Order: sequence, then structure tokens, then C-alpha cells
Amino acid sequence: MKVKVVTNILEANDRLAAENQKIFDELGVFVINLMSGPGAGKTSVLESTIKEVNGKIKIGVIEGDIAGDDDARRIESLNIPVVQINTGGACHLDANMIRVVMNELPLKDIDLLFIENVGNLVCPAEFNVGEDIKVMLLSIAEGHDKPLKYPLMFQTSSALILNKIDLLPYTNADIQKIKKDALSLNPGLKIFEVSCKTGEGVSEWVKWLYSIVNNKP
Amino acid sequence: MKVKVVTNILEANDRLAAENQKIFDELGVFVINLMSGPGAGKTSVLESTIKEVNGKIKIGVIEGDIAGDDDARRIESLNIPVVQINTGGACHLDANMIRVVMNELPLKDIDLLFIENVGNLVCPAEFNVGEDIKVMLLSIAEGHDKPLKYPLMFQTSSALILNKIDLLPYTNADIQKIKKDALSLNPGLKIFEVSCKTGEGVSEWVKWLYSIVNNKP
Repeated sequence: MKVKVVTNILEANDRLAAENQKIFDELGVFVINLMSGPGAGKTSVLESTIKEVNGKIKIGVIEGDIAGDDDARRIESLNIPVVQINTGGACHLDANMIRVVMNELPLKDIDLLFIENVGNLVCPAEFNVGEDIKVMLLSIAEGHDKPLKYPLMFQTSSALILNKIDLLPYTNADIQKIKKDALSLNPGLKIFEVSCKTGEGVSEWVKWLYSIVNNKP
Repeated sequence: MKVKVVTNILEANDRLAAENQKIFDELGVFVINLMSGPGAGKTSVLESTIKEVNGKIKIGVIEGDIAGDDDARRIESLNIPVVQINTGGACHLDANMIRVVMNELPLKDIDLLFIENVGNLVCPAEFNVGEDIKVMLLSIAEGHDKPLKYPLMFQTSSALILNKIDLLPYTNADIQKIKKDALSLNPGLKIFEVSCKTGEGVSEWVKWLYSIVNNKP
């Protein structure tokens, strides 16, 4: 019974997500659903990305949080169009939330839309929101056991940003194990080692972004 | 409609949680529901706690993970009775999962049972499992904006362990802001600064554990 309810919710969400994606496609917007656990640095990676891109492609952002608008204000201060969703308790964004806010953004003037999901390494992976691809972050401070404990997010993502790589010398994390386990779950996963503090890896990540956005059919 | 479904699930769960608590009470087991985002160090804090307690009170552990039994094996190697729950995708433990596994543990011989929840800063806070108190961890590497973004877990917890405090010099985290915001959400919250790497703060946390376990009515 419980499973049936969940299945129906997911099916209804997927239908709406497909409609969102069609709208984005018609407007030529490439959409990335950005996911991670709490505090892995999604907003910091967006800030670094926006600075590195420096207007070469036009970026927009939808911010998802349970409460607050800190992240939206950080993005807005970079002169990027942004809208904040407060889920009021819900642990993930869903397609209908995106539908409700998408027209608050100047979609015709946006090449690349980031949807920053609620910080949660579990639930967001189950809910499509209309994205072209999913990208996940893992902070190196979260440790090397995460791929095998949270497999779905690693399986559904096209790229993994290993963030806060500057903290590696101060942790016990085994980065080779993270990569090995992540690739065993998802052999096509593209992996970037990034530090928003030192700037390491940001240009490689942004180069890859250009290639996927420009190759959108 | 959607809200109604969720309400019913929560009510049914609360009923079962109250039954679990009655069973634990009758057997004299103090139960802590241990929660945090992924990789904040719940299992490491349990390891440090078990070593510091050193048999003075009898500890048992229920491990909750979506997949894998790494954490249970870490606890078992310390000669502590442990049982692993794999939720198979579910993002939190619920009261029925605890009911199903509780008799796998020698409850009569346990003074203090830790239930290590799935790593998730959102959903576990909504589901009682039969615990006396909730305790949450936040890794200092997660940053200082977490209390205001994930208020429910801070509001429902009796204690907050600020873990990986050894990483503080290498992050931009403002620990005073974390404490101030957490206390504004929950003025009675007991806060411990802990490093499992250096051992800092472990004895203060364990002293507090003794006091609450021994004062259980």
C-alpha cells in the first residue's frame, strides 16, 4: 500500500517533469539539477562557476531550500537572475515546484539554468524536475564511504564534483576509493576535483559545462 | 490530499513509536536517536563514545543505512551488540523498522541504545522511532548556515555535537553563528564541540550521557 502511493507520486511527478523539459527545450535552456548532502558547497560551486563563466554563457538559478533565502541573495549579488523556492519542510524539489516558479525567470535570455536542490543525498535523486542532466557534489570532508551508502544519487548523476578538495590533507578520506566506488556504480560518471577556496579544478569543470551546453541537440 | 497522506503516515508512525518506547522503558533501556547529514561522523562519534565509556554502561547500537553494513562492522569490532537495518532506498528510519529488529539485540543487558539514523538532515527529524531523546551532529565542514536552513532537526534535538572541530581552522565556518542560530531555534539545546580525531570534547559529551542515562525515571 505504502509502496503504491509512492509509485503514483513518482509517476505523476515524472509526467510533469517531462512537460517542464519540453518547455525548457523549446526555449533553448540547458537545465542542470544540482544535488548534494547539506553543506557540500552547492552555492559556492555556483558562485565559482558564475565568476569563471563571466558572461560567456547566460546563467540562471533556481534555489531550493527548506527555509531561508541566503543562497538566492548570494547568487543575486552576482547579477544573475535567481528565484528562491522554500519547500517549507519538504526534503526535495519536485517538478511542480519548478513549474510554479519557472516563469519568474527570463528563460528566453538564459542558456544554462541551475536548479540547486535541497541539501539531501537521498530523496532528490528520485524526483526529476525537468532537467537535462543531474550533477552531484560530495564534500571530501564527508568521507569515502558515501558512494556505497547512497548509491542512487551516484547512479543517476552525469557528473560528480568532489568539492573542498583543499581539506583532503586534514581528513582520513581516501579519494581513490570514492572514485573507484562511484565509477563501479556509474561507469560513465565524469568526476571533477574542485576547491572553491583555492580555485582548483573550476576551469576544468566549466570547460566541460561549455561542451555539454553547446552540444545540446 | 498530499498533506493528508503524510499526516496519516506520521500519526501511524507515532503510535508505533510510543509502543516501542514502552518496551524500551520496561526493559530499562535509554534510547538515543542519532541523526545528521551524510558524513558528519555519527559512527566515528559512536566509536569514540564506546571507547570512552569503556564498559561503565552497557551500550547497544542499531545502524540504519540505505545500503551496506560498513558501520555495523565497525561497531561489532568493538564487541558491542549491533544490528544493521538497510532501508533499501528509504531516507529515514521509522518506528516499524525498529520494531522488526529490536529483538535481535540483548535488550535486557543494554543500558543505552543508540539508533544511528540514515544520513539526512531533513526527514529523520519527522519520524520518532521510540527514542527518549534525539541527538544531532553537524560537521564543522558543513558550514554555519545549516541551523536556519534545516530548522526542524535543531528544534527537535536535545543535544548538538559539533563534530570535526579539528577542521575549524581550515574552513570559513563561523562557529559562534552556528551556536547562536541553533540556540535561537532551541534555547535548551546542549552543545558539544567534538573531534574524534584529536579526542577533544569526547569526555564532556560522555559525562553528559552518564547524567541523562542515570537520571532516567
